[in-house]
Amino acid sequence: MSLKRNLFYSLIFSMLVLKCFSQSSTPVSVRMKNVGFTFTLNAKGVPQYAVSYSKNNAILPSSLGFKLDQNVSLTENFRLIKVDSVSVDETWKPVWGEVSQIRNHYKQLTVHLAQQGEKPILLDIVFRIFEDGVGFRYEFPAQQNLKSFIVKDEVTEFNMTGDHKTFWIPADFDSNEYKYTSSPLSQINAHKWDLISSGKIEVNIPDQYAVQTPLMMKSANGLYINIHEAALIDYSSMQLHVDRRNFKLTSSLVPDARGNKAYMRSPFKTPWRTIIVSDRATDILSSKMILNLNEPSKIENTSWIKPMKFMGVWWEMQVGRTSWNYTDQMDSLYLKGKYIPNGRHAANTENVKHYIDFAAKNGIEGLLVEGWNKGWEEWTDDKEEKFDFVTPYPDFDVQEISAYAKQNGVKMIMHNETGGGATSYERQMDTAFRFMNKYGYGSLKTGYVSGIIPRGEHHDGQWMVNHYIRSIEKAAQHHVTIDIHEPTRPTGLHRTYPNFLASEAGRGNEWNFFIDGNPPEHETILPFTRLIGGPMDYTPGVFKLRNYAPGAPDRQMHSTLAKQLALYVTMYSPLQMAADIPENYEPHMDAFKFIQDVAVDWDDTKVIAAEPGAYITIARKAKGKDDWFIGAITGEDKRKSTLSLDFLDKNKKYIATIYGDGKDADWKTNPESYEIKSVSVNRNSKLKLLLASGGGTAIHIKPIN
Amino acid sequence: MSLKRNLFYSLIFSMLVLKCFSQSSTPVSVRMKNVGFTFTLNAKGVPQYAVSYSKNNAILPSSLGFKLDQNVSLTENFRLIKVDSVSVDETWKPVWGEVSQIRNHYKQLTVHLAQQGEKPILLDIVFRIFEDGVGFRYEFPAQQNLKSFIVKDEVTEFNMTGDHKTFWIPADFDSNEYKYTSSPLSQINAHKWDLISSGKIEVNIPDQYAVQTPLMMKSANGLYINIHEAALIDYSSMQLHVDRRNFKLTSSLVPDARGNKAYMRSPFKTPWRTIIVSDRATDILSSKMILNLNEPSKIENTSWIKPMKFMGVWWEMQVGRTSWNYTDQMDSLYLKGKYIPNGRHAANTENVKHYIDFAAKNGIEGLLVEGWNKGWEEWTDDKEEKFDFVTPYPDFDVQEISAYAKQNGVKMIMHNETGGGATSYERQMDTAFRFMNKYGYGSLKTGYVSGIIPRGEHHDGQWMVNHYIRSIEKAAQHHVTIDIHEPTRPTGLHRTYPNFLASEAGRGNEWNFFIDGNPPEHETILPFTRLIGGPMDYTPGVFKLRNYAPGAPDRQMHSTLAKQLALYVTMYSPLQMAADIPENYEPHMDAFKFIQDVAVDWDDTKVIAAEPGAYITIARKAKGKDDWFIGAITGEDKRKSTLSLDFLDKNKKYIATIYGDGKDADWKTNPESYEIKSVSVNRNSKLKLLLASGGGTAIHIKPIN
Repeated sequence: MSLKRNLFYSLIFSMLVLKCFSQSSTPVSVRMKNVGFTFTLNAKGVPQYAVSYSKNNAILPSSLGFKLDQNVSLTENFRLIKVDSVSVDETWKPVWGEVSQIRNHYKQLTVHLAQQGEKPILLDIVFRIFEDGVGFRYEFPAQQNLKSFIVKDEVTEFNMTGDHKTFWIPADFDSNEYKYTSSPLSQINAHKWDLISSGKIEVNIPDQYAVQTPLMMKSANGLYINIHEAALIDYSSMQLHVDRRNFKLTSSLVPDARGNKAYMRSPFKTPWRTIIVSDRATDILSSKMILNLNEPSKIENTSWIKPMKFMGVWWEMQVGRTSWNYTDQMDSLYLKGKYIPNGRHAANTENVKHYIDFAAKNGIEGLLVEGWNKGWEEWTDDKEEKFDFVTPYPDFDVQEISAYAKQNGVKMIMHNETGGGATSYERQMDTAFRFMNKYGYGSLKTGYVSGIIPRGEHHDGQWMVNHYIRSIEKAAQHHVTIDIHEPTRPTGLHRTYPNFLASEAGRGNEWNFFIDGNPPEHETILPFTRLIGGPMDYTPGVFKLRNYAPGAPDRQMHSTLAKQLALYVTMYSPLQMAADIPENYEPHMDAFKFIQDVAVDWDDTKVIAAEPGAYITIARKAKGKDDWFIGAITGEDKRKSTLSLDFLDKNKKYIATIYGDGKDADWKTNPESYEIKSVSVNRNSKLKLLLASGGGTAIHIKPIN
Repeated sequence: MSLKRNLFYSLIFSMLVLKCFSQSSTPVSVRMKNVGFTFTLNAKGVPQYAVSYSKNNAILPSSLGFKLDQNVSLTENFRLIKVDSVSVDETWKPVWGEVSQIRNHYKQLTVHLAQQGEKPILLDIVFRIFEDGVGFRYEFPAQQNLKSFIVKDEVTEFNMTGDHKTFWIPADFDSNEYKYTSSPLSQINAHKWDLISSGKIEVNIPDQYAVQTPLMMKSANGLYINIHEAALIDYSSMQLHVDRRNFKLTSSLVPDARGNKAYMRSPFKTPWRTIIVSDRATDILSSKMILNLNEPSKIENTSWIKPMKFMGVWWEMQVGRTSWNYTDQMDSLYLKGKYIPNGRHAANTENVKHYIDFAAKNGIEGLLVEGWNKGWEEWTDDKEEKFDFVTPYPDFDVQEISAYAKQNGVKMIMHNETGGGATSYERQMDTAFRFMNKYGYGSLKTGYVSGIIPRGEHHDGQWMVNHYIRSIEKAAQHHVTIDIHEPTRPTGLHRTYPNFLASEAGRGNEWNFFIDGNPPEHETILPFTRLIGGPMDYTPGVFKLRNYAPGAPDRQMHSTLAKQLALYVTMYSPLQMAADIPENYEPHMDAFKFIQDVAVDWDDTKVIAAEPGAYITIARKAKGKDDWFIGAITGEDKRKSTLSLDFLDKNKKYIATIYGDGKDADWKTNPESYEIKSVSVNRNSKLKLLLASGGGTAIHIKPIN
């Protein structure tokens, strides 16, 4: 398969060049409905931009620029050469997604600058103004005075108008797996808050006043502002340093082993910096700006790419019932020696067949098996060669399992945990993908738990950013879809690489196993933060919410069972896991029915209600069907609401099956209490939803033929 | 081909277990002819060793130990568990070499130590005492209290007896391409001496009092002592910090990006630390200790591995007549763009055919072509993706050239310059070797000019040490021999990997092109230093010694023409280049005859005379023939000597063709003056040699049938 660029693929092309002019003085202003934008070159030749929404300022005048190697400072003394302008209105169809087609409607300004001096340096800044915000990127044209260069710092500013309420996690270079803190901008302090949970392997927060993106803020006058980036390619991830006194955020790029931020050659385009803004929280969740700022699919034939639900031989290891590793006596036995089995190894042929049986019987398409390959005995240390990606443990008969899965119509999902050893993985990648092709694995989960090798590099730095893309491209060449755990948080690249179905890159449901878990509000924040960049493999669907971990009776999920179901709708992903083990589903097959039925690809999505940290209600229409699925969740607070079904077809009748919290449900004291009822509905119906503390409701609305 | 270990391959096995005992108290002493050795555990539980030669001390009591991560100090408080002893006397045949068989004769002590404390750590030290010195290594047995660990420092001491004369280069982490300084130990100071030559791309000398190994010393009482290491695998290179007051040398390992020295898991064996000692300088050059301390060949079928001579489309670029790169206008044209040729590109089909014609006509087996592949426009910068190893420039028709070379019996040598981008090379390696196999390239020259990627790693660190071995193993799998430029200096690994024919890893003949060049003494020091670890691709055979570089009339080789010939014998390598261009050889085809005739593989070698910094005379018997070749070189001083031919066969008559300096020859004023004469000789003959300043003599002694 070629990865050749095909601009017209899946693109309903209707670009309207409304006007196209050049000018050579500032300020330049543009308006798109409520969003106002101004670019200025100030008296010192500093490029600045500002954003407003309706009559309110969203971003006050903010400076743009760079510091490069050899003491080149690209921050002031610029001269405006000209400004080009163009308007675009087009619609395109994603290979999969929340909606079947996406409108890309913006006005674009390209500001051509030259820094004055003996050896002028050319810098273009491209702004795209949408109805829901602004995206901009820097472009370095090919030029004599700047061929190869090092980015020492990008100094992009976002000047906020006040001490906004902010949902933030600290700017770790290697992880996004934190609980969110909501605080005013002025109170951000990664060292002050209780952020570092148990079990974190690597913590690297050199700047206590810096935060990860997507960063979600809410102003006192009700503006929702989200800052992130789009199309992160060949560059390091942007974090934001917070000037707590002046409410100014400044880009802070993740460094490499030498402390540099990126290595470039002109011509080069940075990722887009994105500001999504609205006076309605639901608009933030509906925004397609980040997808629109990414390039169309590089994969020409996408017919092999399919969203799916899957189960995993995983949760039983995660809760400590069984083990990934085959032996506990690793000394001198590693790889070359004779293994002495520990008797607790989950990925054995018999157990895998048991999962295949359950999945096949209950219509779950895929099965992930972790801990099947050699290397799990010694992999969190600093040695480079950790895993062997083609050699199963002696009790995992890959041939037999593949045949059995095929026979039962279940798709096996490969697992390649690298332990952070990216160089080792790159060396073995060709072999690993040939192995997948040989044994019929069409999907892959990769992992980067532990410190990165090349040593001194970080999960979120330029080298690893490129590595993840290499793994996606290699997967595409082998017709394999990919789900990356522990990469940098996504930036919409699944438009360009639609085989990149999902990633973790955030604090998943699995953390509920650990002592402090995820607070009930967690899933009401994630769609405003982590999910802004792309789908998350959150692994919902845990039914046994207490007493699941041997020897750890105090641990429990911070959720009701009904909420676990609602997450399949509120946490968008084309790849959704039914995370629990068959034995925990079997007592609740009535509730499991929702997991069986819920779609993973959609024609339409309505964000009905949303407030970060409080609640989310979303309705989605299944791809190619008239079925709707609704998820409603709440945080710690109980929530009573009325749901209007006015999005339903005028002429159709429906049956709604409602999976709600039981009357006495409560995430802490009675999480397993749920009620299922069916009612006839139409577009005039209103449903009363009653969500328990930490609870939720899942609804399947099916047309009556 | 499998790389399976075959211990018995090429090994004439005659191990004699003379005695085998255990004891559990120190001191333990061993003698092998002149070499005396003592191990002691002193009162503080510090392991110490000492070496003597004849009646003189060579190494005074010196401590051994480590500093590991988590503040584990393995330097004292050891308890002796037991000492095992064994004697070995065996003979083995190298696949190629200076001699047809090698005796491996030593007594071995294995000292089993345990550090006292709550969690005792086990450490074994293995000493091998030879007739020409001592080798020792640390071994960490598999153990509960030390599984995975980081070496923060190895603290191996070498306490010298006085202020020895020392031939040294500074401890750069990334290069050995320095001129040697000869000074007393007390005067070593890398920042003081004029060491850094023009054209060095990366200089990294964080310790001005540290030096590279092999380190050659001579004591006031005439002992020659050489310190180096053998079998450097999965560990970083050892440099030596010099305590100038106490004449104490301490191991200083090359750090990685994090400042760590090595990442290990027990069981683990360090490389051998080697001390070669004798009262005769010629014994140092004859020593096979480092080869003996390496493992036998891992390559089972070695029939495809052949030493050879070769020419190169290279020197013409090196001196600036032509270019490696195809275009000078690289901006925006790199890789994807259309190239505008600069008209100076050497690796074009026509020019390559011209070299093939010359090589074929004159019996030179191989031809290296540099600058044939895309990437030479932008490769010394910091970007990772520099070279494309399978895409020729438009004027290099690989198919036509391969066919033409085959038709003319010339073997093409592949060139893969990485620019230090090791990760990029590893990703492309499979493709690159398939390309070599497809077009019939059986040999490869690799290069690592410029800083290493992974960034923060060094040429001489553990990661790159493993990378070089990966490239050797990958080459072996594809039946390709390899010549590595800019690796760490060799440590005898060509025994284990006989397809690893040579490396540069030192200051080659090419430096004579640069302004300060190599002083005439340089080649009299290299065999005592750089070559102790393995063959060097020095690229001798430059015939046009002045006025070869356009626009640089002041540059000249620091050598006479006859010395260039003698180097083929004095600088041992199974891979010898005839470095000059055909046009420069054509006026001197009488002298070129020696390059045609000289062997590259040997049945026997006699080091007749040697003094580091002054002179070397070596005679070698061609493999499977009765021909002898002799090389005699001198430094700045003229040298008159009488050469006895008593190594010749008693019953044979010979013709000696002598390629000597002309009477008026002088490297500076008249380097091209040479004389060729033939005389009949036998084993009673004595030849008078007269070497000019910077001169040499090459002799071919051929039996008369």
